Amino acid sequence: MTEGFNFQKEEPTMKSQALKGMRDLLPAEQTLRDYIQGKILETYRASGFERISTPMLEDMENLDKSDGGDNLNLIFKVMKRGDKLTSALGSGDPKQLSDMGLRYDLTLPLSRFYAANKDKLPHPFKVIQTDRVFRAERPQKGRLREFVQCDIDILGDESPNAEVELIDVTARALLGIGFTGFTVNINDRRILHGMLESMGFAADTLDSVCITFDKMDKIGAEGVKAELTEKQLPEAAINALADFIAAGDVTLESVASRCADPAIADDLKYVLATAKAMANGRFDVAYCPSLVRGQGYYTGMVFEITCPQFSGAVAGGGRYDNMIGKFLGTKVPAVGFSIGFERVCGILLEQGYQIPGAKQKIALLYNSDVDFPAVLAKAAQLRDTYNVTVLPQAKKLGKQLGQLEASGFAGAAFMDKDEVKIFAQQ
Amino acid sequence: MTEGFNFQKEEPTMKSQALKGMRDLLPAEQTLRDYIQGKILETYRASGFERISTPMLEDMENLDKSDGGDNLNLIFKVMKRGDKLTSALGSGDPKQLSDMGLRYDLTLPLSRFYAANKDKLPHPFKVIQTDRVFRAERPQKGRLREFVQCDIDILGDESPNAEVELIDVTARALLGIGFTGFTVNINDRRILHGMLESMGFAADTLDSVCITFDKMDKIGAEGVKAELTEKQLPEAAINALADFIAAGDVTLESVASRCADPAIADDLKYVLATAKAMANGRFDVAYCPSLVRGQGYYTGMVFEITCPQFSGAVAGGGRYDNMIGKFLGTKVPAVGFSIGFERVCGILLEQGYQIPGAKQKIALLYNSDVDFPAVLAKAAQLRDTYNVTVLPQAKKLGKQLGQLEASGFAGAAFMDKDEVKIFAQQ
Repeated sequence: MTEGFNFQKEEPTMKSQALKGMRDLLPAEQTLRDYIQGKILETYRASGFERISTPMLEDMENLDKSDGGDNLNLIFKVMKRGDKLTSALGSGDPKQLSDMGLRYDLTLPLSRFYAANKDKLPHPFKVIQTDRVFRAERPQKGRLREFVQCDIDILGDESPNAEVELIDVTARALLGIGFTGFTVNINDRRILHGMLESMGFAADTLDSVCITFDKMDKIGAEGVKAELTEKQLPEAAINALADFIAAGDVTLESVASRCADPAIADDLKYVLATAKAMANGRFDVAYCPSLVRGQGYYTGMVFEITCPQFSGAVAGGGRYDNMIGKFLGTKVPAVGFSIGFERVCGILLEQGYQIPGAKQKIALLYNSDVDFPAVLAKAAQLRDTYNVTVLPQAKKLGKQLGQLEASGFAGAAFMDKDEVKIFAQQ
Repeated sequence: MTEGFNFQKEEPTMKSQALKGMRDLLPAEQTLRDYIQGKILETYRASGFERISTPMLEDMENLDKSDGGDNLNLIFKVMKRGDKLTSALGSGDPKQLSDMGLRYDLTLPLSRFYAANKDKLPHPFKVIQTDRVFRAERPQKGRLREFVQCDIDILGDESPNAEVELIDVTARALLGIGFTGFTVNINDRRILHGMLESMGFAADTLDSVCITFDKMDKIGAEGVKAELTEKQLPEAAINALADFIAAGDVTLESVASRCADPAIADDLKYVLATAKAMANGRFDVAYCPSLVRGQGYYTGMVFEITCPQFSGAVAGGGRYDNMIGKFLGTKVPAVGFSIGFERVCGILLEQGYQIPGAKQKIALLYNSDVDFPAVLAKAAQLRDTYNVTVLPQAKKLGKQLGQLEASGFAGAAFMDKDEVKIFAQQ
């Protein structure tokens, strides 16, 4: 970029960085992401799921009523326009200013979609969504405000086979991109809640208790006890839980025995056993007694995928049997599993992931006096072997080749030579 | 969906329709769109262009300063959050309420991206963007508020070979998806403006004159004269233009002879001739003396693709040599071509477009007492031949098969039979 046009240095008037918490994706990373997302989508489609898409924006009232837990505080709100904005400003009520918001996940839009379109969809409906979502997180490392999720959901099937199939397909999608060594952790919120209630915790404190209980692996029974005491929960209940943990018998049998409905535990046992058999050693399946997941809308089984390379979950999901009913007026069983695409990509990139079988990227350099259609014709020939970009040759060729290598090219070809110069072989 | 779970009819509390001007995409249409977008991207990539992506949201100040013409009135603005919102509300200035907005095209984000990342990019940079953009249009048929564009741009090359390559690649992308019978119309804003100024129109009225001149084909020389008179433009200039049109000699030679800089016309002639030669009869290339394009940021050559099936353009672009300088402080030549993906898809769908070589979609039906892993194993076998979705068999099989056919399935297989029932062959 040092020749061919004039540099007229002026003061820039516009900001060139992407907004905080959002990212520009450079060609190398975008190519890798397209490949990985494409492979995940391929596994999803090959398993009989069908992709849909919904708008990035949803009605603000719907978002407000959506049981999204903490995510409700993280919605980017879009301002009304024209007369409606003027009138909202006049009202003095800030809530009136916005009529739509950017979606914080793909589950709420899917529920709305299903209610609007169910007569045109197969029953049960096995659906794919791979797309961007938005959360107004405090900008900090690892917390993006715009990111991609890859979801599959089964709507209209109350059988635990729906859970089994989602686990099978999601795990195969991860294996298909070379992501291995992971564990699918499964629980049922109702079992955990049942046990905690039986110990004497009040229903409206269960979420808070679960957050502490979920730290069991890190802080131990004593740590759990201390944190619950700090939260000023009933001493008898805290002692009951601490004793139960300290006894070292936190198995599905022991937890389920404290829960009223045995059918819930039977379904969980079935999903654990069947998923484990189908995994056939390619990944682990485990009962995780403290698993809850953050969203308020889950009603039954919940699951997430963890791996040693990352402290949080790389995928998560669960059953949300009540959400579609809010749109449709009739209850529809629903269960979904979402891959955190950014996290999976990040881990693969750290491992030096390469796209299998990708052609080497080279530049075909030409001088400005040459016949341009002939340049494009030569490029077309070279494309049998290489991924070829046509670029004008700079006056300082050595410098240009250095820049090309730095920006990810593997080599260069020239209009007047037959050989292809591969940088690594220089 | 009539069995297996209870219908508890209640009053829905949430709205199920997508927001006005935005669309839910059902599986059949999404599959087709994924295929078409994938094929366009394949041609772009195979031509040595590289995909990037940028956030859906941009800084509100950048958007305000972006020379986007009418599109600036169509920006969805995102409200500030927390303390910043409170303070903005206190200021009484509605302009303070928003700090970011949804992008209205992919050209402004690309220019910002290039300025932020140019040291990591090849020079010139040949780039792909395929993604969603947003415009707060008045909701009406055919005017979407969220839609997909497929863009290629060349940044850092001032030679008209950049225009030639963009036209070649864009046209091949359209041919690659079976879109034929189109014309690439080309003009240079500077030639048109030069001619109009030579006739006596003032510089600040040229945009308005161009809008009228562009209707020449529809309303004729008399119509153009009448409309310009109504706009109260100088009578001598109006007569000069009307006489010129009436003489029926609106060729590049005759227009260029009225423009001061002959190099501009030479470049346009070169692009027209070279693109026409490379088209080799597969599509038309034509000089369009009235073509301007709406965006304020174009500085030189502009082009668009038209076809008999649609009254507007299905692709458009041009050179915008001044935009990157606003971010970078140094002028960088830039030219881009954007396919209006929604319009192209719409036309192909109306023509009954089918994905070449797609497998037939069938359901594998199973009864609830069967071993579920065995169902998934049979599905895996059938997938060599079919696109298979596993679904529980309903009590009323005939009704279920009818529903499957209505929702796009080609047939059904059963766990207890070897045959596959294809609906069309019943």
